[in-house]
Amino acid sequence: MDKVFIFDTTLRDGEQVPGCRLNTQQKLIIAEALENLGVDIIEAGFPISSPGDFESVVEISKLVKNTTVCGLTRAVEKDIEVAAEALKYAKRPRIHTGLGTSDPHVFTKLRMTREQVIERGVAAVKYAKKFVEDVEFYAEDAGRTDNEYLAQVVEAVIAAGATVVNIPDTTGYCIPEEYGLKIKYLKENVKGIEKAIISTHCHNDLGMATANSIMGVKNGARQVECTINGIGERAGNTSLEEVVMALRKHKWLDFDTAIDSKKIYSISQLVSTTMRMPVQPNKAIVGSNAFAHSSGIHQDGFLKNKDNYEIISPDEVGVDQSSIVLTARSGRAALNFRLKNLGADLEKEVLDKVYEKFLEKADNLSVVEDEHLKEILDSISMDVA
Amino acid sequence: MDKVFIFDTTLRDGEQVPGCRLNTQQKLIIAEALENLGVDIIEAGFPISSPGDFESVVEISKLVKNTTVCGLTRAVEKDIEVAAEALKYAKRPRIHTGLGTSDPHVFTKLRMTREQVIERGVAAVKYAKKFVEDVEFYAEDAGRTDNEYLAQVVEAVIAAGATVVNIPDTTGYCIPEEYGLKIKYLKENVKGIEKAIISTHCHNDLGMATANSIMGVKNGARQVECTINGIGERAGNTSLEEVVMALRKHKWLDFDTAIDSKKIYSISQLVSTTMRMPVQPNKAIVGSNAFAHSSGIHQDGFLKNKDNYEIISPDEVGVDQSSIVLTARSGRAALNFRLKNLGADLEKEVLDKVYEKFLEKADNLSVVEDEHLKEILDSISMDVA
Repeated sequence: MDKVFIFDTTLRDGEQVPGCRLNTQQKLIIAEALENLGVDIIEAGFPISSPGDFESVVEISKLVKNTTVCGLTRAVEKDIEVAAEALKYAKRPRIHTGLGTSDPHVFTKLRMTREQVIERGVAAVKYAKKFVEDVEFYAEDAGRTDNEYLAQVVEAVIAAGATVVNIPDTTGYCIPEEYGLKIKYLKENVKGIEKAIISTHCHNDLGMATANSIMGVKNGARQVECTINGIGERAGNTSLEEVVMALRKHKWLDFDTAIDSKKIYSISQLVSTTMRMPVQPNKAIVGSNAFAHSSGIHQDGFLKNKDNYEIISPDEVGVDQSSIVLTARSGRAALNFRLKNLGADLEKEVLDKVYEKFLEKADNLSVVEDEHLKEILDSISMDVA
Repeated sequence: MDKVFIFDTTLRDGEQVPGCRLNTQQKLIIAEALENLGVDIIEAGFPISSPGDFESVVEISKLVKNTTVCGLTRAVEKDIEVAAEALKYAKRPRIHTGLGTSDPHVFTKLRMTREQVIERGVAAVKYAKKFVEDVEFYAEDAGRTDNEYLAQVVEAVIAAGATVVNIPDTTGYCIPEEYGLKIKYLKENVKGIEKAIISTHCHNDLGMATANSIMGVKNGARQVECTINGIGERAGNTSLEEVVMALRKHKWLDFDTAIDSKKIYSISQLVSTTMRMPVQPNKAIVGSNAFAHSSGIHQDGFLKNKDNYEIISPDEVGVDQSSIVLTARSGRAALNFRLKNLGADLEKEVLDKVYEKFLEKADNLSVVEDEHLKEILDSISMDVA
């Protein structure tokens, strides 16, 4: 299987979200958890942006053992010098530099010509190479950059020494086919593309970030930039947990990552709590309902063979167990399963009676808990083992 | 542009989620909002599952003016009779019947042969046609059903009179390419496929539901089943708002829906509140951060040209405005913008002073609000208009 590198930017693109700011101590805890999870690169911050960010990159560089530590910069000499300084204790330092390449970015934000953008990018990469060997270049808003020009930019920065070329869909605009074709175009048209790793960096404004990342990998990318719980600017970044499990559940794609998936749930909880950023119950893989089965049809099918309604076993991602939640939608099979868990193995006739009382109760409750089942059992004078 | 029908199942697949149960009155409020939003079909419930569900389907049928009202059934005569009874007041009734077609469903849940599954499906469609003209068939777990067998099932139920054939990725397993090819295979291999509408019904267990639905449409589907906020069993269903806006933002795909997008935000809030189901801040389109810009680079670019970082204008989906959130990550451009909103138009030199004080404050606050800015302005003895 081909390895896909996981570049986690929870501490940079994630942390810049309103209300998610962390102090250095908190960042160190998350950085350690990320290393234990098995990510390949930690983007630790944007050193020039604030003294706090600088300090965090320094301390994370000291702490982390094998993982590459990356610092973000604009394509500006001062930014690069400060990032290099912040990374000086890292065993594997990487500088991430770049600038916008789409028409709106080139003409209305940077107010440059396309040629000037290439010159500035090349100069930034060359300057960063004076400090570190591993230099990643980002072509901001590549998602909306025309492929021919993007290929020129990428070719130039690889020639200048970029080891990784990042193709961000900054505004979350692309659909998977479009993003896949973009990566394919670069793979086929950039001279020297084999000298660098192509990276995806997708945003979720249209709900496509994970699918775009997978299509990027299928078409030649070998690094995925992502965050825990998909946090990040606006609708967030690609969710690490979704990409990792999508690859693992589609072995025929022939890709894998170094992630220890059993640690996914605990780091999801750590990030959500530390950043005060709730995970919605129906969030894929890490939401509280991700492994909860509630409708009668699903519960019955699940109890016959869990494979009927579950493609990931909860223990694969560190969740204790699937749950059979009893509601007014539940059938006899689910009720019986939960009663057996309480030690009550009932004859069909008694079960029917209990089921009737259960439905009455369920009509007034959103979820029926074990205590309610015990009340029902008591009320029909059963012995519960 | 080709029309894509929007089939909303918030009140069926959404409502069966633990804790989301609604009473009939609440369902009527949401049904009315769905009709105003412009959905084509409302799946109002699963009539045989409970007296409450039956009553809700009856009342929604009476209330709704033009929208098709749909009731779910298993491929069982009694289910179909009860659904037909519940739908008798609907101006445009639809019965949605079907059964599992994947190997685990056929062999371990239904414990039938593949031939028996086809017979049962055909019989259910024929029986439903005795009551209503519009009959939709679902091939449960079609996402994991082999395409050749799936085509046989679909061909048989269309011959039996099905007007819509639903191809659910029940377990949220497929990746977009795979799901797209499935729809393409049916389009090319099923005799009579032109007599029915192909429908997508995707789940989000790997974060792919929206992308899969769009790929389904690109390959021949003309109905998308979805829910407000993407709620639903486990990791939820396809998000209505994501599909609608993804199609609208990619006009070159040449598809559109009848949805009035300006009503998206208000119905998102209505559903979240009524179902007590929080929307995470980084949820695409309807999350509280979906239009919030926080990093300095983004804020600066956004203020020069909002198109730099925003592909959807917030008013398109009924959100008041984009927000420039002031945090320790914000630069002078963002600060100046917010100060101007307060009536303070500062010279560069004064702005520099205010920025310094702003950074001090921001270091201790996660978000800097207008009141804090006023304190800063007061402290440097400025007149605020």
